[in-house]
Amino acid sequence: MVGRPGLSTMPRRTGEFARIATFFAPLTAGFSGALGLRDDAAVFAPTPGSDLVVTTDTIVETVHFVGDEPAALVARKLLRVNLSDLASMGARPCAYTLNVAFPDKIDDGWLADFVSGLEADQREFGIALAGGDSVSTAGPVTLSITAFGEVASGAALRRTTAKAGDLIYVTGTIGDGALGLRGLRGRIDGLDPSLAEALATRYRLPQPRLGAGQALCGVASAATDVSDGLVADLGHIAEGSRVAAVIDAEKVPLSEAARAVLARDPTCLETILTGGDDYELVFTAPPGARDRLEAIASETGVALTLVGVIEPGTGVRVRGRGGEDLSFRQSGYSHR
Amino acid sequence: MVGRPGLSTMPRRTGEFARIATFFAPLTAGFSGALGLRDDAAVFAPTPGSDLVVTTDTIVETVHFVGDEPAALVARKLLRVNLSDLASMGARPCAYTLNVAFPDKIDDGWLADFVSGLEADQREFGIALAGGDSVSTAGPVTLSITAFGEVASGAALRRTTAKAGDLIYVTGTIGDGALGLRGLRGRIDGLDPSLAEALATRYRLPQPRLGAGQALCGVASAATDVSDGLVADLGHIAEGSRVAAVIDAEKVPLSEAARAVLARDPTCLETILTGGDDYELVFTAPPGARDRLEAIASETGVALTLVGVIEPGTGVRVRGRGGEDLSFRQSGYSHR
Repeated sequence: MVGRPGLSTMPRRTGEFARIATFFAPLTAGFSGALGLRDDAAVFAPTPGSDLVVTTDTIVETVHFVGDEPAALVARKLLRVNLSDLASMGARPCAYTLNVAFPDKIDDGWLADFVSGLEADQREFGIALAGGDSVSTAGPVTLSITAFGEVASGAALRRTTAKAGDLIYVTGTIGDGALGLRGLRGRIDGLDPSLAEALATRYRLPQPRLGAGQALCGVASAATDVSDGLVADLGHIAEGSRVAAVIDAEKVPLSEAARAVLARDPTCLETILTGGDDYELVFTAPPGARDRLEAIASETGVALTLVGVIEPGTGVRVRGRGGEDLSFRQSGYSHR
Repeated sequence: MVGRPGLSTMPRRTGEFARIATFFAPLTAGFSGALGLRDDAAVFAPTPGSDLVVTTDTIVETVHFVGDEPAALVARKLLRVNLSDLASMGARPCAYTLNVAFPDKIDDGWLADFVSGLEADQREFGIALAGGDSVSTAGPVTLSITAFGEVASGAALRRTTAKAGDLIYVTGTIGDGALGLRGLRGRIDGLDPSLAEALATRYRLPQPRLGAGQALCGVASAATDVSDGLVADLGHIAEGSRVAAVIDAEKVPLSEAARAVLARDPTCLETILTGGDDYELVFTAPPGARDRLEAIASETGVALTLVGVIEPGTGVRVRGRGGEDLSFRQSGYSHR
């Protein structure tokens, strides 16, 4: 590794220490394991009898966000997509590390807003900053979060453990995030502004289903979160578990806003089922779990909706209103 | 967070799954907790009675590396600087996560070389890939590693626990990394090529002192790794522990190559003591630990050299040959 004259070597940066002390160290409040970001690493004790769950996501300006959004929203969505992965494993969030690469244009105002978003979500989800790294870049803002959670030993929900005969459920409503993005791109006409705003909010600020995920440990047979789209993510369960998944499009729970969009333009069904950015959970459970699932829905306040069944075979089938298979292509869906 | 038409949403990318399966999944071999990179998160069980140690570093092309180095070296140095942080806490490495943001120019050849470097160091240091994320960027290659280690509960070495009367030691030799960088920049004339190469290798491929770090648990009173430079990093111990550190420049252990450079140009002492990129350990221990330190040096094969003493007060003093204080400035050092 050869440095150029004038380039800094590995982890140093003028002003980095001050920036960390001013903006990031306060995010460790209440989490002694962060050592105030003043040591070489974070140190914390996992709860005895628990497994550690670790997930990480990176987002890049102009690829994953435009760059003119409020910095607080960028921060919160990044944290929440990681929390959604913890939710899908049934884990309780503990702490996270943050890696930031900032170009010179990032000023203290942007940074303060970014940190305020993290602060808000740390309070909401009971998680604290454990450590991180802050570096310069000549390129776009690049942000990574690695989130740590805990789950009772051996109890983590997996994608690979669905069985034929299990029923398929989803939390909340499906399609709002993708429709929200579509609306923000100006590709939904004539929707009531308050409904359009509701969809946009689902896209901008997903709601990780942490309570439901934890409650589903020992009840669900398999789970994942819906980030790539319901069909694709259910496909991960089907492929990982070596089974087929069959869902009824009519049973997929929709918000009022999504129903309004779909009523005006039935081709939006593809966006709803394949668009992604839902950050709901899709999971399987044996038929005998029905009473426990009703109790979990009641306790967590999160709707759990039966949408299909696991069968022997491979792949994902989506049945339409008349029982026919729907097939989705990039530019629309068609009956086959 | 508003997406632009044509921009992908959060964690998707064409070809990402194939790239992960082909290049990164093999790096999880032997580490079942990675779940083959096919689930939402990694799950692993910390050893009962141990604390988890977590550290993370980000490097950016053109800031931390030029971009035309062998990709394997970029990978290995990134992993090793993280391992050095684990070493400085006395932790045993377990696993790591990897976040990569690649521009289009990164082809499979580069990626294969990058992965081969990680493979080599995974074998050398007994660590495996647990998870990660791979995204596109329109900017420079941006790489983060988050490394996980374990240490007996409560035994992690800290920066903040040095006491007046403790002695100050360093592992190995100091200054080689910074001199290696200086040589690579063409700023060392007339050095024997084999010595120049030895220095360059120390810069390119640091040797994390994991064995020594683990052996120092319960013996050293405080420790950190030398990444910013001996004076700066010892300053972190002094500041964190609210003590003064006094070292003798003459006692700082130098390699044959560093001695040759210093003999030709005494002003290189500043580079040696403040240049950084050593990834040695600097630590403190009470005088009574001498016999145990000798045993550790013998068992680990790593030299432990007494360089100074902790005193009441603040800051770092470096004494010259005649007992005078040396002071270092950006453009050289001077007696004061």
